[in-house]
Amino acid sequence: MTELVFVGLGLHDEKGISVCGMEEVSKAQTVFIELYTSLLPDFSKEHFEETVGKKLHLVTRRELEDENGRVILESAKNGRTVLLVPGDPLIATTHITLRIEAVKHGVKTRIVHGASILSAVIGLSGLHNYKFGKTVTLPFPEETYSQTPYEVISQNKKHGLHTLCLLDIKTEQKRYLDIGEGLASLLAIEKERKLKTVTPETLAVGIARAGNLKPLVRAAYVKDLLDYDFGRPPYSIIFPGDLHFMEAEALIVLANGPRELKKAAK
Amino acid sequence: MTELVFVGLGLHDEKGISVCGMEEVSKAQTVFIELYTSLLPDFSKEHFEETVGKKLHLVTRRELEDENGRVILESAKNGRTVLLVPGDPLIATTHITLRIEAVKHGVKTRIVHGASILSAVIGLSGLHNYKFGKTVTLPFPEETYSQTPYEVISQNKKHGLHTLCLLDIKTEQKRYLDIGEGLASLLAIEKERKLKTVTPETLAVGIARAGNLKPLVRAAYVKDLLDYDFGRPPYSIIFPGDLHFMEAEALIVLANGPRELKKAAK
Repeated sequence: MTELVFVGLGLHDEKGISVCGMEEVSKAQTVFIELYTSLLPDFSKEHFEETVGKKLHLVTRRELEDENGRVILESAKNGRTVLLVPGDPLIATTHITLRIEAVKHGVKTRIVHGASILSAVIGLSGLHNYKFGKTVTLPFPEETYSQTPYEVISQNKKHGLHTLCLLDIKTEQKRYLDIGEGLASLLAIEKERKLKTVTPETLAVGIARAGNLKPLVRAAYVKDLLDYDFGRPPYSIIFPGDLHFMEAEALIVLANGPRELKKAAK
Repeated sequence: MTELVFVGLGLHDEKGISVCGMEEVSKAQTVFIELYTSLLPDFSKEHFEETVGKKLHLVTRRELEDENGRVILESAKNGRTVLLVPGDPLIATTHITLRIEAVKHGVKTRIVHGASILSAVIGLSGLHNYKFGKTVTLPFPEETYSQTPYEVISQNKKHGLHTLCLLDIKTEQKRYLDIGEGLASLLAIEKERKLKTVTPETLAVGIARAGNLKPLVRAAYVKDLLDYDFGRPPYSIIFPGDLHFMEAEALIVLANGPRELKKAAK
């Protein structure tokens, strides 16, 4: 059987994979794993290898992106091959590219989905999924100056929509943009643009360790989140648009949000 | 331990739950399950009960929504209780409401995430996550006439964004809005509004059984999807906005899309 199966690892440790995903790992001739596109805070490759009784081949960014996953494709041509991916596979463009390459090489592909940061963060916030607009990633301010995230938040707000901001990570260097840094970079752009998109009085929801055993979700004004200690990564921020009264209630009860939110809600 | 743990079942059968979720089920004093907010096409409650050696209490819509989940909260006050939910828990507002009620009653809550239709459909399409705008649900035309979905698609397109359309379901009656019906209802609104949002020549992606063993993903013009046989539910539709050339490539290679898409891509 020549086949490449993308299997999602979920969000946290060795136990985020589905039962179906575990079966795919046992049946595979070769198992690759990449751990750089997202952070799995408590994942131990060694522990997972012990549990499944199989060696996992760690794939580097170079092998996957610069060499178009050649080593994985060669393996898949010779027998059933699994690629383990943090979160839900095929959200990162890297894996879509690999899947396209596989199909072009005559390799069948399948996907075993896993929990994704996208739905986890939305669920944890208690905000309604159908009220989210476009998602953005906040870049490291020392590397990229971009007003795009600010503009996306601004556009979404204009339409009453929430914005999910993912925060950039460099897993290889263990560098994770934190919530305070992300907010500060948006406040700096606010000073220039003056659209009242992200001011110290703007409501935001900071989320740390979504999908982990002890996530932290806190709704507060930007000024109160700038120096708040959210603990270990990964982090996300949501900027709420217009709030339904049930969403306001969720932010107050589940995220310790300001009680006056209820008055502003519809 | 008085606690309520929401555990996601993923998208398909008894094996979509995570290893962590299985452990929660084994440790729980009482396990509830609801199967009406989404369709798990091949899930067998009996088979799952055999695997875990525990009885699952099926919760009805009435118990969860009209009675505010009283039976679940009473159980959680008396010992560790799990509620199994299709997909990723806390995406449906019903479960957010239950979580708020639990916290108000002094019951601790935790979440074990599962694969969600939201990220699964995006991953299967090969389209880029950060280019999706607001999500909509298409209602049953015999029940609700609403121009909102049409307007959301139109607005998203204006900004070059993709739109994910979930299709309404009534699991109790085994009635699932299909892709042809959804497209037809949008074409009817097009006749009135004439914004060229959904015409017979519009590109769309029909997706059946996302997260299942044999999903079907097909990119084509609306006229070619109206009568296309997608097989068993559940279904979704994506209306692409502007296409990056890698997205066009993905639709052609992974979803059998028209080859001329490449010319229109950027």
